[in-house]
Amino acid sequence: MTDQTLPKRILLGPGPSPVDERVLRALSQPLLGHLDPLFLRIMDQIQELLRYVFETRNRLTIPISGTGSAGMEAALINLLEPGDKAVVCINGVFGERMFDIVGRTGAEPIAVRAEWGHPIDVGQIEDALKQSRPKVLAIVHAETSTGVLQKLEGLADLAHAHDTLLIVDAVTSLGGHPVRVDANGVDVCYSGTQKCLSCPPGLSPITFSERAVERIRSRRQKVQSWYLDMSMIEKYWGSDRSYHHTAPISMNYALLEALRIVREEGLEARQARHQLNHRAFVAGVEAMGLSMLVAPKSRLWSLNAVRIPEGVDDQRLRTHLLERHNIEIGGGLGPLKGKVWRVGLMGAGSSRENVVLVIGAIHEALAEQGHTCPPGVASAEQVYELGA
Amino acid sequence: MTDQTLPKRILLGPGPSPVDERVLRALSQPLLGHLDPLFLRIMDQIQELLRYVFETRNRLTIPISGTGSAGMEAALINLLEPGDKAVVCINGVFGERMFDIVGRTGAEPIAVRAEWGHPIDVGQIEDALKQSRPKVLAIVHAETSTGVLQKLEGLADLAHAHDTLLIVDAVTSLGGHPVRVDANGVDVCYSGTQKCLSCPPGLSPITFSERAVERIRSRRQKVQSWYLDMSMIEKYWGSDRSYHHTAPISMNYALLEALRIVREEGLEARQARHQLNHRAFVAGVEAMGLSMLVAPKSRLWSLNAVRIPEGVDDQRLRTHLLERHNIEIGGGLGPLKGKVWRVGLMGAGSSRENVVLVIGAIHEALAEQGHTCPPGVASAEQVYELGA
Repeated sequence: MTDQTLPKRILLGPGPSPVDERVLRALSQPLLGHLDPLFLRIMDQIQELLRYVFETRNRLTIPISGTGSAGMEAALINLLEPGDKAVVCINGVFGERMFDIVGRTGAEPIAVRAEWGHPIDVGQIEDALKQSRPKVLAIVHAETSTGVLQKLEGLADLAHAHDTLLIVDAVTSLGGHPVRVDANGVDVCYSGTQKCLSCPPGLSPITFSERAVERIRSRRQKVQSWYLDMSMIEKYWGSDRSYHHTAPISMNYALLEALRIVREEGLEARQARHQLNHRAFVAGVEAMGLSMLVAPKSRLWSLNAVRIPEGVDDQRLRTHLLERHNIEIGGGLGPLKGKVWRVGLMGAGSSRENVVLVIGAIHEALAEQGHTCPPGVASAEQVYELGA
Repeated sequence: MTDQTLPKRILLGPGPSPVDERVLRALSQPLLGHLDPLFLRIMDQIQELLRYVFETRNRLTIPISGTGSAGMEAALINLLEPGDKAVVCINGVFGERMFDIVGRTGAEPIAVRAEWGHPIDVGQIEDALKQSRPKVLAIVHAETSTGVLQKLEGLADLAHAHDTLLIVDAVTSLGGHPVRVDANGVDVCYSGTQKCLSCPPGLSPITFSERAVERIRSRRQKVQSWYLDMSMIEKYWGSDRSYHHTAPISMNYALLEALRIVREEGLEARQARHQLNHRAFVAGVEAMGLSMLVAPKSRLWSLNAVRIPEGVDDQRLRTHLLERHNIEIGGGLGPLKGKVWRVGLMGAGSSRENVVLVIGAIHEALAEQGHTCPPGVASAEQVYELGA
């Protein structure tokens, strides 16, 4: 900006994640009109690369012109009509948000709950499906508020057996964990750009199966949102190219470049990198005598919830990290406020360098508060090698 | 982008408009977190400058995280509840869009129509208010589909006398025409970033009067959209700073820089520039023997609808302009498709240079189609001086 210089924060919170210089350069390319033949070509390229990261052949695969929550809303309101039922799995903020949105559609939300920090029990999902035979089953793959990973395998079979469509929130997993939309039979999957895809926030990639598109086509009434009405949006992104709203041109440039970087690295290699750095981070956390909120088998690689030790001041530590080290980590939300830190290792942020930095910085900030770590803790570098 | 170089289009269509290099540089500043104290300061600065361009003291003045149509939707759905009535003025695409959105809220839209290319008759508005005593009167200040300017003076008194709130669409006027939210008594006013503010598309500045905020507070049921629910969004932009959705960080950088440029030029000087270049453009159009769609007293300065002469191929001329001159102009929409060109002179695009360029290019493209202009047409430069 003209009158200030923004520091280069090391973004290790729940998102936005660090962005490659190439993506920032793409953002500042000269503007094209939203119906310019060159922009239409960019749209095609984005769709092709989104299909690659979602691992889907779904025709209707596009970025919604809003952040991840707009994608969540688009998924739910396009499939649901007043009077429908929807089973919503809740084990954190984003399950709660889905429940709230379902209520606003005039559909009846039915909650399947698990304690925050734990995955949803599949048996309970099955019971809820049997009892209510809902139109939709909605579940969060990667709960950003807790760091819990929900296994997707088997959910679609369960849902489809009850003539239910499966909606998956992959905001914090797409590009960092396998999502495999087609292999997992997911009907609608949405994400955000600012997590494992390492693009600035502002768009929400989303994909709809043909089954989901059919559901939209057979609606009895209009979708409650004009802005997020997929039956209109698909005409702009499809062969009609008819004007709906003006696409956020620059953000689409950035997304294309971010997706190219994912493709260059390769989806599997990128996921393996997320896993490796997560393991190293956990080793560092444990070497300091701290503990993780989530049990090992349900941990996200992209978002790590670390329990705040007794007697340590949450805000003081995070301010120390931000002011002394330019490192952003996140605090807890809702019932976990003051109880956990949320350390994101997402996209370009998931690196050896960042793990070493953040472990070292937390160690220092704990000492600054007089919190003593176990004796014999080696350097952050050594801990990294140990964990990785 | 990595594998292609985007040409520098001269954007003289209905938006996006040309963007200053400073705005593009701001876009590519390093990312901050959406709760970073430095970003919160940027939000404050944006709000202050938005109040300046809207000419309002409204506390609730923010950019919605979506394009102008998201702002339109936010305005209508936050004020309306099922069963309410809304008088919607329709004389082009954007009035039709408001009518559509009102229908999706469960409220009853009542249309007051004028022919496309003409302003709405105030007497008819008054009749509709008397008959239906609606909750909302919605009107487009600058109809992007036709180039019609609607006078705002007096509308608020009319509305408030019937206990009706006034919503104004200023997407294509804010920053180019006087909007004067407070002086005109407007209750909700929204705009887009990609028109006279010369920022890339992606955000929608919006402002709510205290009367409108009261209406939102006294709602009987939740707003139908979670993403656009102002009662939640205002907590993030207000003193609570509580997380709602992740703000589009980079787009907000760009908006701040674009608003600074508006302030540096001065709102009145900027509007005068829009008026001057519009007049020069019209002189050029008429010198070529072409005519404007809209009568002089109702013409927008920011968007000029030019009648396509008999025998001239619309698409061929626009392709000529794009491919030979890198100039984008817009075609007509709906009933005006094939009948008008829409030439935007918005924000940074409203310049002597661009008027001369586009008049010269249209003249050349008409000749290329064998369309002869009146004899004695001087150079585009001379025409500019004549009109200005």
